Amino acid sequence: MFRLIPKEEKFFDMFVHMAENAHESSKLLKALMGPDADVPNLAESIKALEHKGDRMTHDLFVKLNRTFVVPIDREDIYRLSSCIDDVIDLIESVARRMVLFKVGRASEPAQQLAHLLTRSTSEVVAAVSELKNGLTVMEHCIEINRLEDEADHIYHLALGQLFDEEKDPISLIKWKEIYETLETSLDKCEDVANVIESIVLKNA
Amino acid sequence: MFRLIPKEEKFFDMFVHMAENAHESSKLLKALMGPDADVPNLAESIKALEHKGDRMTHDLFVKLNRTFVVPIDREDIYRLSSCIDDVIDLIESVARRMVLFKVGRASEPAQQLAHLLTRSTSEVVAAVSELKNGLTVMEHCIEINRLEDEADHIYHLALGQLFDEEKDPISLIKWKEIYETLETSLDKCEDVANVIESIVLKNA
Amino acid sequence: MFRLIPKEEKFFDMFVHMAENAHESSKLLKALMGPDADVPNLAESIKALEHKGDRMTHDLFVKLNRTFVVPIDREDIYRLSSCIDDVIDLIESVARRMVLFKVGRASEPAQQLAHLLTRSTSEVVAAVSELKNGLTVMEHCIEINRLEDEADHIYHLALGQLFDEEKDPISLIKWKEIYETLETSLDKCEDVANVIESIVLKNA
Repeated sequence: MFRLIPKEEKFFDMFVHMAENAHESSKLLKALMGPDADVPNLAESIKALEHKGDRMTHDLFVKLNRTFVVPIDREDIYRLSSCIDDVIDLIESVARRMVLFKVGRASEPAQQLAHLLTRSTSEVVAAVSELKNGLTVMEHCIEINRLEDEADHIYHLALGQLFDEEKDPISLIKWKEIYETLETSLDKCEDVANVIESIVLKNA
Repeated sequence: MFRLIPKEEKFFDMFVHMAENAHESSKLLKALMGPDADVPNLAESIKALEHKGDRMTHDLFVKLNRTFVVPIDREDIYRLSSCIDDVIDLIESVARRMVLFKVGRASEPAQQLAHLLTRSTSEVVAAVSELKNGLTVMEHCIEINRLEDEADHIYHLALGQLFDEEKDPISLIKWKEIYETLETSLDKCEDVANVIESIVLKNA
Repeated sequence: MFRLIPKEEKFFDMFVHMAENAHESSKLLKALMGPDADVPNLAESIKALEHKGDRMTHDLFVKLNRTFVVPIDREDIYRLSSCIDDVIDLIESVARRMVLFKVGRASEPAQQLAHLLTRSTSEVVAAVSELKNGLTVMEHCIEINRLEDEADHIYHLALGQLFDEEKDPISLIKWKEIYETLETSLDKCEDVANVIESIVLKNA
């Protein structure tokens, strides 16, 4: 279909490491929402991965400034890494709210959304890994979009149930925000897919 | 003032169809908020238009990939269609909340915002229709900005009244979110205007 | 490090005036949150600065349309001025909520966040002022990012305390939104820094 000229392969590897970091933190979030989870401890581990992600983003920008020939537009590199960084930030934000809000065990829809998030970040890893040779990038982007649709459906069902059943307003506010942040994490994976698609379109 | 080279007029027609779809769904939302509305039925029709919009966006991207010479930057086509898609998504989101939250009849400010939204999407149709020859594009963009200002004013009055009068926290949460989503729909029309303006600036 | 060709110095001056306007409104917000503040009066002054900002943005776009050679990409000028405009809009939004919600005296964390905001907008002024010769731009952008981190920490502490201590749901909703809007103002300063960084990267 198309082939990006691999002038500086290192950038692609850096994207893959960043995406893997996002996937790793989504798996910890899923565990945090599972049975018998050590919530504060897992939230700390997610925070550590978020800081690791920040350092990766910074290293990539330093490298970008020292490199004269880059494989894709500088600005696209900038946008893609910022988007992946957003995914990790949002995962950390969900974990932080689970701790701050002291809600106890995650509800069923929260667990389902966390599970979909691990699948979506796994597709982000795959899409970014294929960006170098461009073969199945679009398939992974389509799957990320499909997972976001599925998450959207679960999110709205959860919201309806919450407003039907939860009579304590503060508890309702907490779960509403946890669902929203989870749903936004999956939206941000879709933003990553959109940036990747636009890189593919540009280099088609 | 300026003239975009109409190498492939089809893209402009596709934008117009997408904008018309957004306008159509805003009219259904206004009806949904009016007297004696069949809320669930109208929400379903809006959902159908949203799916139609998704298919239009997809068709446009497929066409984009098969076209070598496009009238404006590929990326701008991408951004403009994504923004119009956002408008429809938000309209659908308002309709869905009217159903989920079971709030009954729309309040006066919600109806006013829905009415402004039909006017703003109508200006989006006009701006996009004029993009091909560029004559009155800027006037429509200015009007979209003015309508957003007007909506912003109504939104803040509604918010103040809500916090003054509504004593049930869960009901307050519901109406606050309906007002916010309506206001965000009008913000997204402004984003469409901004993308159109930047296309005009680039091609000036 | 790098030097942007100062083909049309006026644009840089316009950015500086816009950033100074944002900084001025952040100082008024800090005063509005301080002891014995005349809240409605200061909110009015902030609103006046927001309108002034809108006129500046408009003047810049008019100038952009009349200028053939610009010092940096037209689109970057557009994005930078839009981002600075967003900062002022959010500051105005915080002030408006202080009035609408009738919460009385600002809480300790709200005051701290307003203080950080004055420091961040001051760095925005510095970054934009240096954009012309490019010398210390990056240092200011890094400081804006650091201030956002600090604000993020205060924001989360405040949120935790709010959910621990506030038993009135409507009061909780009000402060939650004030904290969020303050935090988002600092996020938008970070967006300004990101646009500036990408301009620097492009022109490196």
